Amino acid sequence: VILTVTPNPAIDMTWSVPRLVQGNSHRVVAGSTRAGGKGVNVARVLHGQGRAVRAITTVGGATGVEFSADLALAGLAHRSVPVAAPTRRSVALYDEARSETTIVNEAGACPSAAEWRSLTDAALELLPDCRCLVGSGSLPPGGPAGFLADLVRAARTAGIPTVIDTSGPALLAAAQAGATLLKPNAEELRDATGELDPVTGARTLLALGARSVLVSLGARGMLLVRAGDAVVRSARLPTPLTGNATGAGDAAVAAVAAVLAYDDDGDPERLLRLATAWSAAAVLMPLAGDISPSHPDLAARVVVEVEG
Amino acid sequence: VILTVTPNPAIDMTWSVPRLVQGNSHRVVAGSTRAGGKGVNVARVLHGQGRAVRAITTVGGATGVEFSADLALAGLAHRSVPVAAPTRRSVALYDEARSETTIVNEAGACPSAAEWRSLTDAALELLPDCRCLVGSGSLPPGGPAGFLADLVRAARTAGIPTVIDTSGPALLAAAQAGATLLKPNAEELRDATGELDPVTGARTLLALGARSVLVSLGARGMLLVRAGDAVVRSARLPTPLTGNATGAGDAAVAAVAAVLAYDDDGDPERLLRLATAWSAAAVLMPLAGDISPSHPDLAARVVVEVEG
Repeated sequence: VILTVTPNPAIDMTWSVPRLVQGNSHRVVAGSTRAGGKGVNVARVLHGQGRAVRAITTVGGATGVEFSADLALAGLAHRSVPVAAPTRRSVALYDEARSETTIVNEAGACPSAAEWRSLTDAALELLPDCRCLVGSGSLPPGGPAGFLADLVRAARTAGIPTVIDTSGPALLAAAQAGATLLKPNAEELRDATGELDPVTGARTLLALGARSVLVSLGARGMLLVRAGDAVVRSARLPTPLTGNATGAGDAAVAAVAAVLAYDDDGDPERLLRLATAWSAAAVLMPLAGDISPSHPDLAARVVVEVEG
Repeated sequence: VILTVTPNPAIDMTWSVPRLVQGNSHRVVAGSTRAGGKGVNVARVLHGQGRAVRAITTVGGATGVEFSADLALAGLAHRSVPVAAPTRRSVALYDEARSETTIVNEAGACPSAAEWRSLTDAALELLPDCRCLVGSGSLPPGGPAGFLADLVRAARTAGIPTVIDTSGPALLAAAQAGATLLKPNAEELRDATGELDPVTGARTLLALGARSVLVSLGARGMLLVRAGDAVVRSARLPTPLTGNATGAGDAAVAAVAAVLAYDDDGDPERLLRLATAWSAAAVLMPLAGDISPSHPDLAARVVVEVEG
């Protein structure tokens, strides 16, 4: 089983409006509500591709009740750690005329020290039986930067690969802890390392201790840089796809976890090809956590280049 | 006790953003969630002014659980009628820089025939002990236009005054049923009667059977027209207030209900003065259902004019 840990999950609410006009009142039929947060999206993608997965998240308040009910509806195995603060919400208003989404994300409330401990304990308890540990998403404001790093260390000790998709000090700490793969986007990488060039930024994370870094570049594809490997591999589709980029990074993380969990040959080109294809397949779907069934065709079209 | 019946309640969610930019992603601390819908706002205002009140609404789904929990938190007596469809949601994004609110309202799902019957039964069961019946807000799409009218007829038979704040065919039906007071705004009155002039529109509703019509004109105050009374009374503050107009009409309805429930002298100027003051006091508050404690001062400043 693949474990995904989401320290700051959200209930994602989406409303579609023919034309959004600021200051106006709009009447719509009904919105959709879905349990979200990056690690939950990763788990959805893996579940959709038939991989055994379990999502570990905090859950709190009335929004937490909705969150858990939605995961149950999706048939996603879930370990919820009760916290006092309500699960945060994310609001997306989709303007149909402009194909443009306006998003308001709540930052999320920080769990107490005891609640952080319970979340760590839940992950550690399930760790021995897992094939890969994924830690995805931001920490709530004030959260301990070393939370995911501690899980990485425990997984390393147990010989379990780790995939971490986070930002800021938590990203640096996960690198220092020796994560198997880090998946920042170009902006997160620049913010965390201070390096403008993504390859230099990735090498900075390797120097800290990470084993590999997959940098997502949006429509320009992805870069993979590995410790002890001088070459830089890049991958992209010959023609970029247009659609909904939300969840594309989560699909890439899911692909990486699927490869690392059940495939020990560690072929970097295969990993890059699958990550790029699943990511592109997510762009074709309206909701984060879904990928288009066309992903095998996309994988066949991915162009991988090796430099250096 | 005053009963308020809300056929299409909502859970009102509000997020405040320093500057809302369409197509952008915004991070905010947390939003607020509140049980809403016009009749619920009326009940909140009355409860806040120490009047015994009970809110009758449908309640459904996960949003219905949140809805009921919020009413309990507010200490509002509530009779909830379970329905299959989730309680609808209303989203407000407040742009702090522009003092402007962008709203998305779900239309709401229509209860089944049996659920409408249960809602009617709940109101009829509580009717004998009440002093005034308020029916407020839109019907969900496909709802029976005669729903509030049926309650008006039952209340008339029992000698209980009724205040109805609705629109379209439901407004006309309530007039035909002989409602004690109808409270459309100028636009609703025009849409329902086809008359551009609010006094002519109000007289149309009186001709159908309503006993009186209070027309809210926004910052221009209110008009009161009564059956068998040739004069038209208008009321306004000498200088209009600026603020949040959401809930101003509900506060006017609350004032009318407070007067009709416990005050049989039916002095039209007193009614108009109180409705205008409570409505203005609602404009001063950020959330619908609250009125400023300055309402007695505002009432003293209201200018009432009698014409015709």
